Amino acid sequence: MRLEYKLKQKSKRNMARLGEFTFNGQVYETPMFMPVGTNATVKTLAPEELKEIGCGIILANTYHLHLHPGEDIVSKAGGLHKFMNYDGPILTDSGGFQVFSLANPKDITEEGVHFKNFENGDSLFLTPEDSIKIQMKLQSDIIMSFDECVKWPSTREYIEKSVERTLRWAKRGKDVFNNPEQMLFGIVQGGDFEDLRRHCAEELVKMDFDGYSIGGTSVGEDKPTMYKMVSYATKYLPEDKLRYLMGVGDPIDLIENVMRGIDLFDCVSPTRLARHGHAYTTHGKINLKNSKYKEDFTPIDSECNCYACQHYTKAYIKHLINVNETFGARLLSIHNISFLTNLMKEIRENIKNDTLEEYRDEFIKKYYGEGYEYK
Amino acid sequence: MRLEYKLKQKSKRNMARLGEFTFNGQVYETPMFMPVGTNATVKTLAPEELKEIGCGIILANTYHLHLHPGEDIVSKAGGLHKFMNYDGPILTDSGGFQVFSLANPKDITEEGVHFKNFENGDSLFLTPEDSIKIQMKLQSDIIMSFDECVKWPSTREYIEKSVERTLRWAKRGKDVFNNPEQMLFGIVQGGDFEDLRRHCAEELVKMDFDGYSIGGTSVGEDKPTMYKMVSYATKYLPEDKLRYLMGVGDPIDLIENVMRGIDLFDCVSPTRLARHGHAYTTHGKINLKNSKYKEDFTPIDSECNCYACQHYTKAYIKHLINVNETFGARLLSIHNISFLTNLMKEIRENIKNDTLEEYRDEFIKKYYGEGYEYK
Repeated sequence: MRLEYKLKQKSKRNMARLGEFTFNGQVYETPMFMPVGTNATVKTLAPEELKEIGCGIILANTYHLHLHPGEDIVSKAGGLHKFMNYDGPILTDSGGFQVFSLANPKDITEEGVHFKNFENGDSLFLTPEDSIKIQMKLQSDIIMSFDECVKWPSTREYIEKSVERTLRWAKRGKDVFNNPEQMLFGIVQGGDFEDLRRHCAEELVKMDFDGYSIGGTSVGEDKPTMYKMVSYATKYLPEDKLRYLMGVGDPIDLIENVMRGIDLFDCVSPTRLARHGHAYTTHGKINLKNSKYKEDFTPIDSECNCYACQHYTKAYIKHLINVNETFGARLLSIHNISFLTNLMKEIRENIKNDTLEEYRDEFIKKYYGEGYEYK
Repeated sequence: MRLEYKLKQKSKRNMARLGEFTFNGQVYETPMFMPVGTNATVKTLAPEELKEIGCGIILANTYHLHLHPGEDIVSKAGGLHKFMNYDGPILTDSGGFQVFSLANPKDITEEGVHFKNFENGDSLFLTPEDSIKIQMKLQSDIIMSFDECVKWPSTREYIEKSVERTLRWAKRGKDVFNNPEQMLFGIVQGGDFEDLRRHCAEELVKMDFDGYSIGGTSVGEDKPTMYKMVSYATKYLPEDKLRYLMGVGDPIDLIENVMRGIDLFDCVSPTRLARHGHAYTTHGKINLKNSKYKEDFTPIDSECNCYACQHYTKAYIKHLINVNETFGARLLSIHNISFLTNLMKEIRENIKNDTLEEYRDEFIKKYYGEGYEYK
């Protein structure tokens, strides 16, 4: 049951695009935001809640699942879908981001990457072939090439070498990939160098992947730089394939990057912010730990119709967060994921009408207030 | 909307009784197990999940809610039901158990109890009148008299004095109680002394409470002693009023104490055990942290039809518990509360047929194995 992407409509004013794919008999529309379920669970939530929110693809992390419970157990369980009881599409990352966050540059060799297991200090070695084989065992629907996610800023010299290695790794992974039910994406790196992004994109396109990701963003760069990195890549990617911007979830970044040709986003923010008591609202992010919400018996966002906003007040959720009750994080997770899911729905409607730029300007005014500048 | 209890049927062979009450247009049957929602939330669960399980009354803790968010905020929110989005019946305790667990005997005076706030060390003083006033503000449906829960074993001399004070406190609380929508219960103390339990019960009955609780159990005594304490009290309580055994939730204790005339039980066990990876099953309690469940792709209990058992395997839940994902505790909480709720349903069916003693013997054989002895 392989997912098939169809491009439906393109903006005449920017690179935004509407698309859809069918999976398990259900049609999903892009652009789409994908919540992260690192350990084969979107923190605090049940699959039924994700469906009620209107989520489509969810993400799981290969590195974490490799450590616990291990891909063999997931495989014996019948794959990730059966293991975690989610019949919507699942995407796995490759462990490449953990190269960025857990390994030192000297741990990265041509053959693969040496990690320290973050729990017990054990040595781990992961190759591009291992990553693909693990992801095949996990039986996710979209899998990622193993890449090096380079920190920002990095020298041109380092990124040049890293891009070449990422391309060789992409090829090695593709050579062992043989599951016709999955899609394999190549990952465009290249930092903030236009020619390196272009080179990486073009070489990956020659290898003919099922879709393309853009990596090496959300690693410390400012917003204008992120947007440039995305533009540098998307213009060299084929229109009939999905494009996925990895690890990006700030509301304004979703709008801006859709305008630069992105179809898929993922980010831990909605659930992580929830655990810290933060909520997105139409009028910006709020922190429910703030004492001003103590007697605020209104919903998180009066314009939101999610389960949390229908039945609970800020005062109650604030109380739950104060006394460390996980139902608080659960309600905020439902709300935050709903917020981004609804945002994507509005984005799609505005692509249909080709009014996304006006929508962005209105969104900024409401969310950040007048006079907002990207930084 | 006051809850009205009706006795429906009595066993001819023991003191077990079937009853029912109507609340918010819905009929609930007793005997019943009540899950605990200390901070106005049954840990990890949504009200809709409690209803799907078939729960009726849930409990909330006065002491905890007094500290956070404070009864005034709950009152301004429109009471506990509105605050926490639960339209089934809610019972609050009085803080009496915290007298037992947080205060020293020297902190207990005729006027009330001095506590140290467990979070910041602040001094708190709570009187029987305060407790009732707080519970009236919380707008729960069944409220408790403020009592002293005495540890076991205690000297006859100490318990004698304590029972008299508990009776004076019950009277003082009743004198300030004036909410016709709530039921106020008296609490029978008296340790393991038959005459003191009888005295306490008879004096409370003279005061004519809306129902009666039995306290001072589950405080370290063995099972035969607990069962005696209950029998000492229930035989002096009026048949047309609810009887609630506080803090008891071990499956066999539910059966044995129903046979001694109990209608209501509460206990933190199902949710606390869940957070530690434990599950009740027809064949006894299991610990999902045990490595033997690593590749066990069967449900927690094949005889259970709860949401967790319908959709998830031991291997998955074990994985969630291993990596500290709260969805694991949530699934186990659903299962454990379902287990006790289903047990109560079977108990009620066996009261109908007056076969509870045979049911108990069968239950013991399956749950503990042959040759089990109470201890």
